[in-house]
Amino acid sequence: MSEEIVLNDIDKKYLLDSIRDVKDFPKPGIVFKDITTLLNNKDAYKFLIDHLEQRYKSYDLDYIAGIDSRGFIFGAALADRLGIGFVPIRKVGKLPAATVCEKYELEYGFDQIEIHLDAFPKKDARVLVIDDLIATGGTANAAAKLVKDINANLVEMCFLIHLTFLDGAEKLKEHAPVYSVLEI
Amino acid sequence: MSEEIVLNDIDKKYLLDSIRDVKDFPKPGIVFKDITTLLNNKDAYKFLIDHLEQRYKSYDLDYIAGIDSRGFIFGAALADRLGIGFVPIRKVGKLPAATVCEKYELEYGFDQIEIHLDAFPKKDARVLVIDDLIATGGTANAAAKLVKDINANLVEMCFLIHLTFLDGAEKLKEHAPVYSVLEI
Repeated sequence: MSEEIVLNDIDKKYLLDSIRDVKDFPKPGIVFKDITTLLNNKDAYKFLIDHLEQRYKSYDLDYIAGIDSRGFIFGAALADRLGIGFVPIRKVGKLPAATVCEKYELEYGFDQIEIHLDAFPKKDARVLVIDDLIATGGTANAAAKLVKDINANLVEMCFLIHLTFLDGAEKLKEHAPVYSVLEI
Repeated sequence: MSEEIVLNDIDKKYLLDSIRDVKDFPKPGIVFKDITTLLNNKDAYKFLIDHLEQRYKSYDLDYIAGIDSRGFIFGAALADRLGIGFVPIRKVGKLPAATVCEKYELEYGFDQIEIHLDAFPKKDARVLVIDDLIATGGTANAAAKLVKDINANLVEMCFLIHLTFLDGAEKLKEHAPVYSVLEI
């Protein structure tokens, strides 16, 4: 197997510097990682998608599944680069046809995400799940289950940012390898 | 000025055939245009993004602004193709930094979308707004106002599908030209 393609520290710093910290959002005490300043910086945006393309072009993927809704941004651009299909994993009630649904725990209460039952028309599809950030990993864990529920092969889960102090990637390891472009 | 790039009837039919009709969603009597069957079809998806790139590569755009959340999919891929920045226009409460907000009418009540005040770092930015579908045009009209509120140049508004019987494009003409890939 060829060497794993990851960013070096200089490249990581370049991308990190393009992400803005917004204090006290969505509530007091939280520092929000605002990726909109990466997205509207054409050089940083291109750099990130170039990296994802380089990493994943040898993975023989059939679909990118993006998590609602910032995962749509990276996922759609990466699917286009790789010449494969894009599949949205959505908050409950947004997908019009038959779905499978997974419930997951939030700080207070529960939320649900779902995927179309026929989301991956190709048999034994090889799928990458992508989102902007992994914190506690609740949403990502539910997304992994959804992909497996409909009998696709979850090849890897990819995040732009991993908040390592919350250790959300740990619970995903039973499903698939996890790749984070940046760790904070 | 060079000729406007649009699809011929055969190409339109190819894309239309990749979109699924789902009856009675989100409520009885409505036929929902489900674009997920276009997105997960690698050939149709590539065909659409190829067309958008061909059309817009000569527009000298600085940013693509995508409307939450299906507009993120086409907008992010197109921005990447054109080598420019992507800007999300979001439902209220999702953007972390200072925003400007526009309220718009729904069938019952109101909704709001917003954009970061500093969404377009380049002065006099040339912006394309994109979404998957225009129905009554309420959301798109609010999105057009947002772009102008923060002093960017709204060059055009682009939709994959225009439901012509609702005539939503009419109210947008005061803001900018409107391009629909498909009319239904």
